[in-house]
Amino acid sequence: MFPEYDIIVVGAGHAGCEAAAAAAKMGSKVLLATMNMNTIAQMSCNPAMGGVAKGQIVREVDALGGMSGIITDQTMIQFRMLNKSKGPAMWSPRAQSDRMRFAEAWRLSLEQTENVDFWQEMVTGIEVEQGRAVGVRTSLGITIRGKAVILTNGTFLNGIIHIGEKQVGGGRAAEKSAKGITEQLKELGFEAGRMKTGTPPRVDGRSLDYSRMEEQFGDENPSKFSYTDTEPLQQQRSCYITYTNPEVHEILKTGFEKSPMFQGRIQGLGPRYCPSIEDKINRFSERDRHQIFVEPEGWNTVEVYVNGFSSSLPENVQYEALRRIEGFENAKMFRPGYAIEYDFFPPTQLNLTLETKLVQNLYFAGQINGTTGYEEAACQGLMAAINAHNKINDKEPFILKRSEAYIGVLIDDLVNKGTDEPYRMFTSRAEHRILLRQDNADIRLTRMGYELGLADENRLKAVDKKIAETAEIISYLNSKPIEPGDINRLLEELGSAPIAEKQRAGQLIKRPNVEIEHIAKAVPAVAEFLSKFGKESVEQAGIQVKYETYIEKEHAMAAKVSELENYNIKGKINYRDIPALSKEAKEKLLKVQPETIGQASRISGVSPADISVLMVYLGK
Amino acid sequence: MFPEYDIIVVGAGHAGCEAAAAAAKMGSKVLLATMNMNTIAQMSCNPAMGGVAKGQIVREVDALGGMSGIITDQTMIQFRMLNKSKGPAMWSPRAQSDRMRFAEAWRLSLEQTENVDFWQEMVTGIEVEQGRAVGVRTSLGITIRGKAVILTNGTFLNGIIHIGEKQVGGGRAAEKSAKGITEQLKELGFEAGRMKTGTPPRVDGRSLDYSRMEEQFGDENPSKFSYTDTEPLQQQRSCYITYTNPEVHEILKTGFEKSPMFQGRIQGLGPRYCPSIEDKINRFSERDRHQIFVEPEGWNTVEVYVNGFSSSLPENVQYEALRRIEGFENAKMFRPGYAIEYDFFPPTQLNLTLETKLVQNLYFAGQINGTTGYEEAACQGLMAAINAHNKINDKEPFILKRSEAYIGVLIDDLVNKGTDEPYRMFTSRAEHRILLRQDNADIRLTRMGYELGLADENRLKAVDKKIAETAEIISYLNSKPIEPGDINRLLEELGSAPIAEKQRAGQLIKRPNVEIEHIAKAVPAVAEFLSKFGKESVEQAGIQVKYETYIEKEHAMAAKVSELENYNIKGKINYRDIPALSKEAKEKLLKVQPETIGQASRISGVSPADISVLMVYLGK
Repeated sequence: MFPEYDIIVVGAGHAGCEAAAAAAKMGSKVLLATMNMNTIAQMSCNPAMGGVAKGQIVREVDALGGMSGIITDQTMIQFRMLNKSKGPAMWSPRAQSDRMRFAEAWRLSLEQTENVDFWQEMVTGIEVEQGRAVGVRTSLGITIRGKAVILTNGTFLNGIIHIGEKQVGGGRAAEKSAKGITEQLKELGFEAGRMKTGTPPRVDGRSLDYSRMEEQFGDENPSKFSYTDTEPLQQQRSCYITYTNPEVHEILKTGFEKSPMFQGRIQGLGPRYCPSIEDKINRFSERDRHQIFVEPEGWNTVEVYVNGFSSSLPENVQYEALRRIEGFENAKMFRPGYAIEYDFFPPTQLNLTLETKLVQNLYFAGQINGTTGYEEAACQGLMAAINAHNKINDKEPFILKRSEAYIGVLIDDLVNKGTDEPYRMFTSRAEHRILLRQDNADIRLTRMGYELGLADENRLKAVDKKIAETAEIISYLNSKPIEPGDINRLLEELGSAPIAEKQRAGQLIKRPNVEIEHIAKAVPAVAEFLSKFGKESVEQAGIQVKYETYIEKEHAMAAKVSELENYNIKGKINYRDIPALSKEAKEKLLKVQPETIGQASRISGVSPADISVLMVYLGK
Repeated sequence: MFPEYDIIVVGAGHAGCEAAAAAAKMGSKVLLATMNMNTIAQMSCNPAMGGVAKGQIVREVDALGGMSGIITDQTMIQFRMLNKSKGPAMWSPRAQSDRMRFAEAWRLSLEQTENVDFWQEMVTGIEVEQGRAVGVRTSLGITIRGKAVILTNGTFLNGIIHIGEKQVGGGRAAEKSAKGITEQLKELGFEAGRMKTGTPPRVDGRSLDYSRMEEQFGDENPSKFSYTDTEPLQQQRSCYITYTNPEVHEILKTGFEKSPMFQGRIQGLGPRYCPSIEDKINRFSERDRHQIFVEPEGWNTVEVYVNGFSSSLPENVQYEALRRIEGFENAKMFRPGYAIEYDFFPPTQLNLTLETKLVQNLYFAGQINGTTGYEEAACQGLMAAINAHNKINDKEPFILKRSEAYIGVLIDDLVNKGTDEPYRMFTSRAEHRILLRQDNADIRLTRMGYELGLADENRLKAVDKKIAETAEIISYLNSKPIEPGDINRLLEELGSAPIAEKQRAGQLIKRPNVEIEHIAKAVPAVAEFLSKFGKESVEQAGIQVKYETYIEKEHAMAAKVSELENYNIKGKINYRDIPALSKEAKEKLLKVQPETIGQASRISGVSPADISVLMVYLGK
């Protein structure tokens, strides 16, 4: 009934959709198996893509030729570049999406992707022959053959939804859970665990008093996620900010005795950095308010997402507490928040290609690996697909280094350190974050994407042009002398010391408050020169010139790490003698006694900072 | 947690959506409870609204102030007026819809309806106090109070999906079934039964060879469903026609031994007039082909609906047979067809208001009453809501007569005759169908809708204008003399006898092939006169003049029926002596010995034709 596929993708969330699209674009015949074709690419939780570190991941996915950035650009209702006041390593794009449009755009995009077939049914097992995945089995008893299988089951594997003392099986509100896969993988020798995540109530926007909240507009000149020529956003919808208060907290506390988390009915660990409101009250009892971020779910719908109010307390407690929040006095809920427990497989059971160590040609991506977040899922789907495609075509694995991409950091962390709570990306996880900026993801990755057969030639041309232009602008800035008379008045305005004699533009830009635009404003010749180039090239040149020293230092550090990867340290270091090491790192290093710097860096609890300390100690 | 609602609607399909919208517009505070807010207004089966008799119902729903017509107009991708070559009683509007857009438009429309609240959760029981429904209970154990409850559970009550020998609980593919309500209602004394319906496989449009099928275009000048000013369709998508063949049938027969229907695993009766392909092969073994109608599911999606190929045979049998159909040689399935069994409540347990006889203020609408079809469901939802609203406001019941609307025929049939197989509307069910035309639904019903507080004033004004214009045109046509010299050449062209002396335009229009447009074309003065009026008024006048005799006769018949409703016939008729009575009617009448003509007409098996025979016999 089915041909033999090259790659079978199980699940059609963010990981599954990226996997299917990427594998197909690279030339594989793909089957995307989903329990429900009407729920492809659902935003199960908040209607937003990106954010700090996550936005960088979306840019990386896009640079490699993935679709998440394009879909988000097509369907967003608001765009903000977060952390614009900080250094460019912290700049993070974030978009509010129209939830319905997002799902529809993904589905239509996949439907238009040649080589992607669809099958709506529950996959209940993997076909394994001689230690190799060769297909899947479905609930109807059908066997579908495939040369490789990518599992992206999200929260569906034996999912249980908790609200107060109530429990119901389900992969998402109102959706069935998936059975069979965990049990089979355990029989094959896999270790499985339980994780927990949660989602807040959805409310009726018509019942909120926005005048009592703080309005948060989108950026004045909204940017976008994709490096391709998607249309910039013309109109935007606002979000709103409000806060909980002691009364809200008191009401929530009345539900603690029925809390599935506090009473031990939930065994899996939840996402530390996206805690439920009851968790926040419990852990930060000194705080008398928590921020609530009120997000519209789309252009037209009145449904609203109450970010920051995730909860699995009884629905009436959620409701009563919600209505004590400023602006929510008359709030009507559409549905309560809930917690969901699901199976995951500790990702230390994977290779860096996301192929499982136990079963060849079987790949895991997304929440099944213990991560949380759409972006984390999407990039794993993409990487699993690339590697599955390459494997069945006898090509080299595609592994991104920690110094090349957040994606590299994510997968390295997962595979080498594992995780026992939902793993979310942060800039702090990336020791080379000054290199891994959202502005240069295309420069870092698009050529790789092109060589993989994923990013098309237009993307490559655009990037090559940007690189060439950037170089030309940098060269100009580093040679262009600026006269004191032209610039001193502006420097004064900016609170920067005047210059006594002419200085290269590049030198001036290195000063804290001085940007490339300032020079252009003050010196018409510079403005004229820059006007020949793309906006992104000018920005890129500005960043590279301004942060030249840091960037060079970081590149050197990355090279050193790479070189030291196999540097033998066994018996050479007395960890007790190094006060700068964190307590946790000291303990772990003493216990493990790693052979090499590389191994040391992969010990859970040993941070990139600890490795730097070791390197200094070794005089490296 | 919830206020007391006026009306709680359980289920958000075609019946539930109409019910919620109507009750809210009339002024009730409404809660729409649905298991999944992402699946509001799903077209579970084919992506089309209307068709023979069903299109008339949509027009009636629209005329009363319902939303189905407007939503369809907004989201259709093709429109056809069926049976245009027959008399106007047979004209039937039918539209192909964009399935995703249809659901989205309904949801957004409900969201914008004041007085409609939403709650996403499974309703598991009705709160009943002293024989009166006073609310619902949910799976979380919440009680929500409401003065009236409307159940529109569709196929969800204890739904079981069958594919070959496989069975799985579910209300629709990939969706959970609903538990609790049937069990409770049985305890309350309700009789429940099982019914069955089915749906065909969905296929990938990219895999079909449309060049081997017959293209079916939309109408050249597409009309629309709603009498309101919705935009006419600018572009359309085609459907395609192909046929099964003996090879297809042979393959399907190989699955008969695993058929859940033929092997008795399905107990409920299926829709006689929308049978599965295996049923058709079985029942019409002499036919060597059946028509397959290939319907696109939307503007952009590649998903295609294979109308006429509904099946619950094993999926591989469906697949192999499908690929022997011309144009389907390389067809890829997205999902197989399936049968679904579900609980219904024989509708003889209802009053004509759709309120249950056993529990006051509890209303049933849609498939729960044993009907099939979106249109049948929608109109019941509307009528249940009107009556629930009127009841709790101490207003009169709103009951449409069989001579006033297809809706009246439908409900009268259900309540008085019951049904043991899914009930579908046909023109043949309406004895007064010459009166119940799609062109005059507004004239018949909009004033009623307005007086109910449902249709707004603009609708009423439009109808009143149409009525006045129609009268003016009719008066003109019936007095306007047409000279032989002006018209004889045209009459000759139309194959109609020439006139020797002048004749009124109205007289000419009564001739078989002569239409109002012909007269206008031949006589400039007529054209000029008509140009002052709306297109619909001109059409209406043409129909009323042309069919005047039939319409008058039918009105007289309807009046007589109404009058004879209570005419005593007990002991006055020897049914054996009337050869014109159908065999079934004779048997039933002999057995029941009805007291009145009214009672006789409501006996299942006694058709409107039989009643006419009795009336002739009685000399009435």
